[in-house]
This record gives sequence, C-alpha cells and structure tokens, in this order.
Amino acid sequence: MDKVVVILSGGMDSTTLLYHMMHAGHGVKALSVNYGQRHVRELDAAAQICRALEVEHQIADLRAIGPLLGSNSLTSESVDVPHGHYEEESMKMTVVPNRNMLMISVAVAWAVSLKFDAVAYGAHTGDHAIYPDCREAFADALDRAVQLCDWHSVKLLRPFVGMDKGDIARRGHELAVPFETCWTCYEGGEKHCGKCGACQERIEAFAKFNIADRIEYEHSSV
Amino acid sequence: MDKVVVILSGGMDSTTLLYHMMHAGHGVKALSVNYGQRHVRELDAAAQICRALEVEHQIADLRAIGPLLGSNSLTSESVDVPHGHYEEESMKMTVVPNRNMLMISVAVAWAVSLKFDAVAYGAHTGDHAIYPDCREAFADALDRAVQLCDWHSVKLLRPFVGMDKGDIARRGHELAVPFETCWTCYEGGEKHCGKCGACQERIEAFAKFNIADRIEYEHSSV
Repeated sequence: MDKVVVILSGGMDSTTLLYHMMHAGHGVKALSVNYGQRHVRELDAAAQICRALEVEHQIADLRAIGPLLGSNSLTSESVDVPHGHYEEESMKMTVVPNRNMLMISVAVAWAVSLKFDAVAYGAHTGDHAIYPDCREAFADALDRAVQLCDWHSVKLLRPFVGMDKGDIARRGHELAVPFETCWTCYEGGEKHCGKCGACQERIEAFAKFNIADRIEYEHSSV
Repeated sequence: MDKVVVILSGGMDSTTLLYHMMHAGHGVKALSVNYGQRHVRELDAAAQICRALEVEHQIADLRAIGPLLGSNSLTSESVDVPHGHYEEESMKMTVVPNRNMLMISVAVAWAVSLKFDAVAYGAHTGDHAIYPDCREAFADALDRAVQLCDWHSVKLLRPFVGMDKGDIARRGHELAVPFETCWTCYEGGEKHCGKCGACQERIEAFAKFNIADRIEYEHSSV
C-alpha cells in the first residue's frame, strides 16, 4: 500500500479520487490549492469532506501569484464566467495558465517532505478538449519529471485519465461519495448555477448512468 | 528572437543567465521566488540587477506554502546552514523539496499569460551532486511537460546545464556581469560568510579562471 497526497479541489472528480485511493487501501493526505478562484466555496467542500473522513487536509495559499496568471474568468472578477457547454470556444476563458503543474508541484514538494510515495490528481477525458494540462501526454511527461525531482522518488498517479465524467459519477456512486457536498459550479454563488460549463458537465455525467444528484440548481433548464 | 521569462535568484548563475539571454537578443522579464529562504537578501540583489538593466522584475511570494516544505536549512530557522563543501553529505540539508519545479511552474504560468516563448533557468553541472532537480534528465522531462501544459507552447531553456560554475563565472566576466551585486551566501548575513557550500563554490569558481571577485567575506579562510 502506498502513501499518497491527493489533490482535492472539492469537486466530484477529485472527491471520487480520494475515496477511490482510500478504498484501494492507500494512506492519504489531501491538498487543496487556493489560487484565487472565484468559486472558493469548493475549498469549504474539500475541508468538510476531509473532516468526515478524518483525513488530514492542507490548503496551499497561492493567491499571492494571482497577478502573474493573467486574465481568465476563474480568477479575474472583471471577466464573466461563460455560460454554455464545455466544448464551446468560450470555455477557454476558464483556463488558468499551468494550473495543474502548479498544484502538482506543491503536492510533490509536500509528498517529498513527508517521504510519501505518490501524488494523485483527477484528470479525465472530458477535460481534454479545453484543458491541455489534463491530457495523457502531459501527465506522462510530468510524471517522469516528478520521479526525477528528488532522491526520494515520487510518482504521479492519474487513475481517471482514461475515464469520462460519467464513469467517475458511476465510480463515486459505487463508493457512496457524498456528491451533495461536492462543489462544482464556477460561479461560486449560493446554489450551483446550472448554466456554466462545469454545472452542465455535472448534470450530463449524472444523466449518463441515470444517477440521482441531490443538489439544487439556480436554473434547472437542463 | 524569443521572449523569455528568466528565473532570477539574484545569485551569480541566474544573473549571468539573464545577461546571456539579453546578449543573444531575446526580450526578457525576470521572476524571483520568495519561498521563505533565510538568504532573502538575494531578492534585493535581483531587484537591483533588474533596475540597472531596466528589466521588468516580479517576485512570486510562495511563503504561504512554507509549512509543506518540511525541515531544511534554507527555510527552517531551527536548522543550521552546514559549513563545508558542496559535495559533502551534510549539504543535503539545503535541499528545498521540488524547488525548481515550483519556481518553473510559476514562471511558465506567467509566460503563458504573457504569450512568451520560453522560460530559462540556470541549472549547471556543479549542482548535480546535491540537487536532483538540476540534472539534465529532470530538465528534459520537465521541458516536455512544459511544452504540453497549454495550447500556447512554451519551452524550458537551460543553456548552462552542461557547464560548471567556473565556466559560468568566465561567461559572466565576458558579459561584464556585476558580480559584486550578486548574492550567493546561504546565511543571509551582512557579508558573505565564506564558509557555507554556496560561498565555497563561488570562491572556487572565480579561482578556476583566475577572475577577481570584489565581494568581501566574513571569513576569508579559503
């Protein structure tokens, strides 16, 4: 059994990943990253999930580097979150430059200092159209760099990289993941908006295998 | 000519790198990282060097992740900086876990948001014995990941990876690098200590090609 730092956003993919790693018998700690996302509510979700599981949870505060991340709709108040489907061109406004390498770098630093065996992140095929740093080729290359970054070798695990979000919903359902606690919406309002790409993708994922999702949407047009 | 973000610690290697990239005709911006190093004086040196060159300089503040970096003599007040030579086992106390991937990740995020072509860092052969993330194999693997992290492709340059610190001193001397402004010592006192591995390596580098170094050491035993 390995010891693994799981990168946990508080959304359904990374929460399912955390349950999946624990179910496989690994010892886990969870890391969330505050990069100035407007949907900072996801960090409260991550903390709540970890408290319930009695898993150690750290939040790495990278807000100070916000000015280097340029203009995108997840971290800039002045750029609206696009409504519509993930595959649409407008969703590229939601790309935070090099987000995954940043989060993985911090997780690996922590894993090395803990002498842990691996870091895991929840990239999946549904992300690939928009997010280049969820592609398998990126994960493969970064895994090689991660394994070489220290004399104590750490691996980069990405068990969902060949699955889509529907498959993850099914896996999470099997593992009794508390999806109602997971935060998905990019808007970060009181309720999930139901209109942004992240909400739409969530709705479609649950529909794929006809799994009930017990959250309430602001706009339930779908 | 490329546009390049140069990772600048304020020491002699990265300062020579900055001059080297400018001499080749590239457009440059410089990035320093405050990771809680006790020799934070190097950041003042970096700022001074950039002001003189009229180069834009940003400092990424990663101090908030300090608790995840474990115990090492560069960021922990409670761990003494070892005296002696770089090759000695004790120098491993100066390894900050995954430092280069962390710094490169931030630099790449900035380069992507600027639509720059590359990030450059000053790894060289003298570092390899102690710092795994200065090895050529690490840089090669990370370069591949960097090139895949965004639709706008960025390269990772490491022009000194086959040179030693003596070669860098010679190159810097050719380019009239103001070595007296560069900060090297790990102790971060008023003067360079002359005893830590970093100071000893600096002294040997200048001696290799008989180049004068106009800084004053606290202990000039060598």
